[in-house]
Amino acid sequence: MSKNLSKRNQDYSKWYNELVVKADLAENSAVRGCMVIKPYGFAIWEKIQSQLDLMFKETGHQNAYFPLFVPKSLFEAEEKNAEGFAKECAIVTHYRLKNDNTNKNKLIVDPDSKLEEELIVRPTSEAIIWNTYKKWIQSYRDLPIKINQWANVVRWEMRTRLFLRTSEFLWQEGHTAHESKDEAIDEARLINNLYANFIENYMAIPIIQGLKSESERFAGAVETFCVEALMQDGKALQAGTSHFLGQNFAKAFDVRFANKKGNLEHVWATSWGVSTRLMGALIMTHGDDNGLVLPPNLAPIQVVIVPIYKSRSELELINKVVNKISEGLKVKEISLKYDDRENFKPGYKFNEYELKGIPIRIVIGPKDIENNTVEISRRDTLIKSTVSNDDKLFSKIEEILNDMQLALFKKAKSFRDNLITEVDDYGSFKKILKTKGGFISAHWDGSLKTEEKIKNETKATIRCIPIDKISDKGKCIISGKPSSQRVLFAISY
Amino acid sequence: MSKNLSKRNQDYSKWYNELVVKADLAENSAVRGCMVIKPYGFAIWEKIQSQLDLMFKETGHQNAYFPLFVPKSLFEAEEKNAEGFAKECAIVTHYRLKNDNTNKNKLIVDPDSKLEEELIVRPTSEAIIWNTYKKWIQSYRDLPIKINQWANVVRWEMRTRLFLRTSEFLWQEGHTAHESKDEAIDEARLINNLYANFIENYMAIPIIQGLKSESERFAGAVETFCVEALMQDGKALQAGTSHFLGQNFAKAFDVRFANKKGNLEHVWATSWGVSTRLMGALIMTHGDDNGLVLPPNLAPIQVVIVPIYKSRSELELINKVVNKISEGLKVKEISLKYDDRENFKPGYKFNEYELKGIPIRIVIGPKDIENNTVEISRRDTLIKSTVSNDDKLFSKIEEILNDMQLALFKKAKSFRDNLITEVDDYGSFKKILKTKGGFISAHWDGSLKTEEKIKNETKATIRCIPIDKISDKGKCIISGKPSSQRVLFAISY
Repeated sequence: MSKNLSKRNQDYSKWYNELVVKADLAENSAVRGCMVIKPYGFAIWEKIQSQLDLMFKETGHQNAYFPLFVPKSLFEAEEKNAEGFAKECAIVTHYRLKNDNTNKNKLIVDPDSKLEEELIVRPTSEAIIWNTYKKWIQSYRDLPIKINQWANVVRWEMRTRLFLRTSEFLWQEGHTAHESKDEAIDEARLINNLYANFIENYMAIPIIQGLKSESERFAGAVETFCVEALMQDGKALQAGTSHFLGQNFAKAFDVRFANKKGNLEHVWATSWGVSTRLMGALIMTHGDDNGLVLPPNLAPIQVVIVPIYKSRSELELINKVVNKISEGLKVKEISLKYDDRENFKPGYKFNEYELKGIPIRIVIGPKDIENNTVEISRRDTLIKSTVSNDDKLFSKIEEILNDMQLALFKKAKSFRDNLITEVDDYGSFKKILKTKGGFISAHWDGSLKTEEKIKNETKATIRCIPIDKISDKGKCIISGKPSSQRVLFAISY
Repeated sequence: MSKNLSKRNQDYSKWYNELVVKADLAENSAVRGCMVIKPYGFAIWEKIQSQLDLMFKETGHQNAYFPLFVPKSLFEAEEKNAEGFAKECAIVTHYRLKNDNTNKNKLIVDPDSKLEEELIVRPTSEAIIWNTYKKWIQSYRDLPIKINQWANVVRWEMRTRLFLRTSEFLWQEGHTAHESKDEAIDEARLINNLYANFIENYMAIPIIQGLKSESERFAGAVETFCVEALMQDGKALQAGTSHFLGQNFAKAFDVRFANKKGNLEHVWATSWGVSTRLMGALIMTHGDDNGLVLPPNLAPIQVVIVPIYKSRSELELINKVVNKISEGLKVKEISLKYDDRENFKPGYKFNEYELKGIPIRIVIGPKDIENNTVEISRRDTLIKSTVSNDDKLFSKIEEILNDMQLALFKKAKSFRDNLITEVDDYGSFKKILKTKGGFISAHWDGSLKTEEKIKNETKATIRCIPIDKISDKGKCIISGKPSSQRVLFAISY
C-alpha cells in the first residue's frame, strides 16, 4: 500500500481529508453530507463509546432510547432552542411512495400521504425528552432522572467534512432532571470533568475546561460548560459540551414536581454530549505525515505482527513463535493482529499499519528465529529496536504501550501550551492570529459588541472562559474597560 | 407498587400492553407509532445487543455505520425490494424551517428548501449499502465483506404495538458479500444457526428453524431462513430472518469482482437481522400474571435484596450482611441490586420486582440476622426457602440462576411442543386453529394459490418450512396433490 499522503505543513486540510479515507476510517456516501463509517473507523468509535458508557454508568446514569422524530409543535415549545436549531434540519412531510404511472420503474411521493403535522429528524432531543419527562415526574421522589442515549442526529449542513461536520452524526446525549439548581449545576460540572478525564486520559488530547460566552452557548442553556482542544494547524476544536439548562425546558413543557413540603416547583435540567466529531479531534491531534497515530487506550489493534519469510518452513517456524506471543499478550489483554496474508508484501503491510496508526509493529524474520529475537517498532517515534523474545517481552510491550499513551499526551500538551499566547492589545492579537494561530489569551469586557467586532474582523471567537482562572485583572483589548479574567480566543473548527 | 395487571387467560393482549408499561420497559411517545424505550427495558436490550455483538464478532463480522437516509433513486434500483418496502416509509422532502410571519411563535416548512431528490428514512439498508459496496469491491481479494450495523429503522405502520410493531425500531442488520453462491448460502445458514443458538440459550425461547415460502420471503431475497417462536396465546412470532439474496442486489447496483481467473462476476449476498421485536417475544414467552419473568442470562439485575427492619440498628446489621453477600456475588459476576429505599414498604418492593421479573429476590429481616439465614425466592416458581447465610450461599444462588435459565426454556418448549398439531385434512385444520391455536403441521402442495386460500379463509400463514425435515410424504390438505414435507401454519404476530 503506497501512502501518497499530503504533508501536513503543505496542506493540513487536504492531509486530513486524505488520511480519513486512506486509513479506512470513513468516506462520503450517496447522501449529501452523510458519511459511511467504515469498520476500522467504527472500531475506534466503539472503543470511545464503551469507555464513556462505563464512565456514565459508574456515575449513576442509565441508557434509554427516545424517538428519532420530533413533531414540529414540540419543537416550537422552547423558543430559543427552536431558534437555534430549527432552521436547518431534515423534515419528514409524507409517509408513502407509490408507483409513477408515467414511468413504470419509478416511484413518486404519494400526495395523499401528507402528514398533518411535519416531523423533524432530531437535531438534538431536549424537546421530545422533556415532553416525556413531563409524564414521569410528579414528586421529588421521581428525581433525579439521569439518562443518556446513544443516537444518530441530523443537522442539515451546507459544507461538510468527514467526522468534523456531517449532516448525520452519531453521538451520546445525556438529559438529566433535578430538584434543585445546585444539583443540576453540579451535574453539568461533573460531566464536563468526566469528558475532560476521558479526552485527556484515553484520547491523549489535552483540553481546556471553561464556560462559553453567551453568544456561543447552546440554544436554550443558561450556562454551557465545554472542553476545548487545539489542532496541529492552530485551530481550536470544541470536543464536548455540558449545559445547565436552568428551568427553561421544564417551563416550556410545564414539568413540575411536588417538593418535600408539597409545593410545586419547576424541575432543573442539564444536557450534554460528545459526538463522532471526537474522531476528527483524535486524527488531527496525533496524526503525522505517515498517517494516523492512535493512543494505545483506544487502538482496536494495539500490536500487529508481520512475518518475513521466503519458504513455507520459515513461515511455520514464525507461526510457532507468534502463537506463543499471542498467548502472552492475551493474558495481558493486549489486542493483537497477525497479518500472514500471502498476497501482500511486507512493505505494503508496513505502510498500511503506519497509515492506520497501530501503536506497535512487530516484525519476525528468519534471522529473528535464529537469534530468538523480534523487531519492535513504535508508531509515534518510528524507532525500531531488536529485543529478545523471552518472557520479559510481554511486560516490555505493555511498558511501551503505557509509555506511548503518556508520550502522546505530553507531546500534544507541549504543542498546545506553546500555542497559547497572552496579548494585551488588539494589534498583537491580530498579528499573533495571523502568524502563529492557536489560543489567544486576552482581556475582554464581557460585551457581545466586542465579541462580534473581533469575530467580524478576524474570524476568531471566544472558545471559552477558562475555569481554572487565575485572577488577573486587566483591560479589554478593544474597549479598554476593566476585565477580571483573560478568555481564550481562536479560529475554530 | 400495586400490580393491577390483567390476567393472561382473560385478555392476553391487554396483559401484554399493561405489562410493558407497568414493568417500566417502554411507552408510547408523542410521535405516532414511535416508542420510548425506558431505562429498564433498554438495559435488557443492551444485554441482548452485547451478547449478539460478541457472537457476530466471534464469527468474523465487523460493525460499521451507513447513512440514515436512502435517496429515492437508489431505492428504485432493486425492483422487488422497492416494491416490498417503498410503500410505507418516512419521506424527507425539505431541509429548512422558517418563522411563520402570520404567527410569531410558529415555524413553517420553508418552501425554498425543497430537496431535488427526496430521501427515504431507511426501512432497511440494502440499497445504500450495496451502492457503497460497489466502490469497495473490485477483486476476489476484497471478498468476503462481513459487516453488521446496529441502527434505527423506520417503517410507517398504521397499527402499532410496543416492541412488536412500531414505526421506528432498533435492530441489527448484517450485510455480507461473497465470491460464490455456496459461500453466501453458508453464511445465511450460519447466521440463522447463530440466532437459534442465541434465542434458545440466552432468551430461553424455543424456536423452529426453517425456510420461508415464496410469498413470505424478504422482498429481493432468493431464500429466507427464519427462526419462529410461539407465544402463550398460540400465535407465532418471527424472531429473526437471514436472507440469501443471490446476485439480485449485485445486479441492481452492478457490483462485480474479478475472480481468480480474471473474469468479472456479480457478487453473491446475504442480509440478516433481529430487532427490538425480540423484547416482545421475551415478555410474551416467559411473563406470567404477576409480571415479567426474565431468564437470568439476560436479566440486568439478577438478584435483588430487600431489607426488613424496624430500627436503624436492625438496618445496620442487615447492611453488614448485605456487604458480605455483595462481595461474594461480585466474584461470581452475578449482578445485585440492594433496595434500601426508605420511602417504600417491602410489599411495594416485592410487587415491583415481581413485575420486573428479577430472577432471585432475597429478603433479610431481624430473624434472619438472629439465625444467620436469608430468605430466597425464585421468580419463575415463586417458591421461597430459607437458607443458611454461609459460604455456600453464592454457589446456591449461582445454581438457582442456572437452573432457572434451563427451567424457563424447558417450560416454554413443553408448552410449544404441545401446541404443534399434525392435521391431514382442512376440516381439522380449521377446527384446531379455532380451538387450540399454535402451529399446525400439514402437507402443502407448494403453490401460492393454496397458501392464499388458507390465508384468506383462516388468517393462518405458512410460518416456515422446517429445516429438520423428516421425510414424510403425504397429500396437500387443500388440493390433494403430493407433498414431500409438512410445513408449519399459524396465526402470527
